Amino acid sequence: MSNINDVAKEAGVSITTVSRYLNNSYPVNVNTKKAIQEAINKLNYKPNAIARGLVRKKTNTVGIIVPYITNMFFPEVVRGISDQCNAKGYDIILVNSNSDGFEEKKAVENFLERQVDGIVIIAPKIEKLPPSFYRKLNKTLPLVLVNKYFNDKDIVFIYNDERDGAFKATEYLLDLGHKNILFISGSENSYSSEVKIKGFNKALKSRGLLQKKNSEDNDNILISDYTSENTFKLIKSNMEHVRKHSAIFCANDLMAIGVIKALRSEGYEVPRDFSVMGFDDISISALYEPGISTVSQNITSLGKVSGDAIIKLISKEDVVRNQVLNTSLIIRDSCSRIKE
Amino acid sequence: MSNINDVAKEAGVSITTVSRYLNNSYPVNVNTKKAIQEAINKLNYKPNAIARGLVRKKTNTVGIIVPYITNMFFPEVVRGISDQCNAKGYDIILVNSNSDGFEEKKAVENFLERQVDGIVIIAPKIEKLPPSFYRKLNKTLPLVLVNKYFNDKDIVFIYNDERDGAFKATEYLLDLGHKNILFISGSENSYSSEVKIKGFNKALKSRGLLQKKNSEDNDNILISDYTSENTFKLIKSNMEHVRKHSAIFCANDLMAIGVIKALRSEGYEVPRDFSVMGFDDISISALYEPGISTVSQNITSLGKVSGDAIIKLISKEDVVRNQVLNTSLIIRDSCSRIKE
Repeated sequence: MSNINDVAKEAGVSITTVSRYLNNSYPVNVNTKKAIQEAINKLNYKPNAIARGLVRKKTNTVGIIVPYITNMFFPEVVRGISDQCNAKGYDIILVNSNSDGFEEKKAVENFLERQVDGIVIIAPKIEKLPPSFYRKLNKTLPLVLVNKYFNDKDIVFIYNDERDGAFKATEYLLDLGHKNILFISGSENSYSSEVKIKGFNKALKSRGLLQKKNSEDNDNILISDYTSENTFKLIKSNMEHVRKHSAIFCANDLMAIGVIKALRSEGYEVPRDFSVMGFDDISISALYEPGISTVSQNITSLGKVSGDAIIKLISKEDVVRNQVLNTSLIIRDSCSRIKE
Repeated sequence: MSNINDVAKEAGVSITTVSRYLNNSYPVNVNTKKAIQEAINKLNYKPNAIARGLVRKKTNTVGIIVPYITNMFFPEVVRGISDQCNAKGYDIILVNSNSDGFEEKKAVENFLERQVDGIVIIAPKIEKLPPSFYRKLNKTLPLVLVNKYFNDKDIVFIYNDERDGAFKATEYLLDLGHKNILFISGSENSYSSEVKIKGFNKALKSRGLLQKKNSEDNDNILISDYTSENTFKLIKSNMEHVRKHSAIFCANDLMAIGVIKALRSEGYEVPRDFSVMGFDDISISALYEPGISTVSQNITSLGKVSGDAIIKLISKEDVVRNQVLNTSLIIRDSCSRIKE
């Protein structure tokens, strides 16, 4: 295959001139045009995206950073974004950051070097990278941050209202008569667990059930790590504490499965003895027995809306800066009314 | 941010000359060098990957085509490939083909236009696209085909030995005393189901249990669609036929879950009344109750080996043309010895 260098050499002109001719972006002398076209014909050259992009200052690529491509949640979001991008002629370059701030920063630098037209960061590591990093990036090129939020009126944030989702899930358990609800957090001080705890506490407070702020503040919160395996172990080794509660609300569905397995191994049945609630509505939650009641994050629309936003930003169209998507309760079989 | 155009304009030279200077790929006049470096300093220009790639004829990108990024199997493979690529300084451009031959072809053309350094196709649509398509592509640039195979000694194929996996799973059920085993295929005439049926039949034949080739040839095969939901319905509406068997071997784990749910809804227990075997070992299979006995596809090593192969091909190192990875039996709780 011949490339733009070969054409330029054959025609005796510079790459820039060939690009200008191909893109019709700048006047080119008629004889030069003829020479270039003859070189193109002779070499059977097919103009490529790179040569065109160099002059148009456009690469038709969108960079996506994802914390873990193997987590069941993220591929759905990537799919939604890439569908929107592909439909508009943009390709995606995907980088897995392992939820590591340093890796995320490296990926951003690489994207800038590649001159991507826009960047979407799913679950940006705002716990590690300062707001100034994202603010500066947002001034450099179109940027969309997905499923996290900090206070900034210039950056486009698109996220699920996890706080409200946790609020609704807690209200549902309260409505079933549960007064002692244990919350299983996915990690300490992570954005996603903290907003859920806020929603959880808000619901308890609205019923006058929020414990007083004292040394035993988080007596109804256990911290796990979003995995089924370690949550199983956590519950097993804290059964005495767990038994003080009638319902367990987990910050994701995988932990809910770990809880159900641990309770079963202790001779309990769900929802007969304990109600268990998840979060995310990953596909396993519908397949599991009992079907897991959970909070749907509308993953597909999260991806779709984010993909739509980055394309609009690149096209210099207006985009709402702060888009909050609704979560919804999915009621299955893992929760029941408390026995009086 | 300034780009290579700005530098060329500022220095009064062509883009090619700037690229030659940056890449040290071709002699550049000493005064020209000075002018370029001054322009770079003045504009605070950082050389970008595209400008460098144009001259080096290298973009440091690998294109990956995946049938469904949301299927639980593929993200693991993508992860393995991209880890290997990223470690060697290559980025991945990911396209979702929806398992559609036309989309796959379009993605390949796009990759060629972008001058990617190599292409990895996961589960290429060989049922739709002719071998000549892949052969021609393989002559154009480094190519790795993952988890499918046709007879060609020049193309690098990397795949799991699904046939042997199905053989081993069937032998396991036979060893438990099952003589009437029902196979649930994922689709008619697909590569992945056909190789499994070959392994299944080979095991039956080795015990003299393969039915005679006649009109009732596939009496022990039901065709589903790889989903849990439709397999549930299929089993429900074929219970009379299903009851003639004591074990059910499914071409993937999701269908095994559909089978277990359907049997339960008919009042049967697994493995007490029926043994059920899956294929793939997706994460849900360990979490489900009963834990699903299945065939592990070594997904992580499939991705790792494929990523390694494409990098070696790009670096013009030797790569074995036909790499078959071993599958292994994962024994959990969904199969038991037949009651005498």
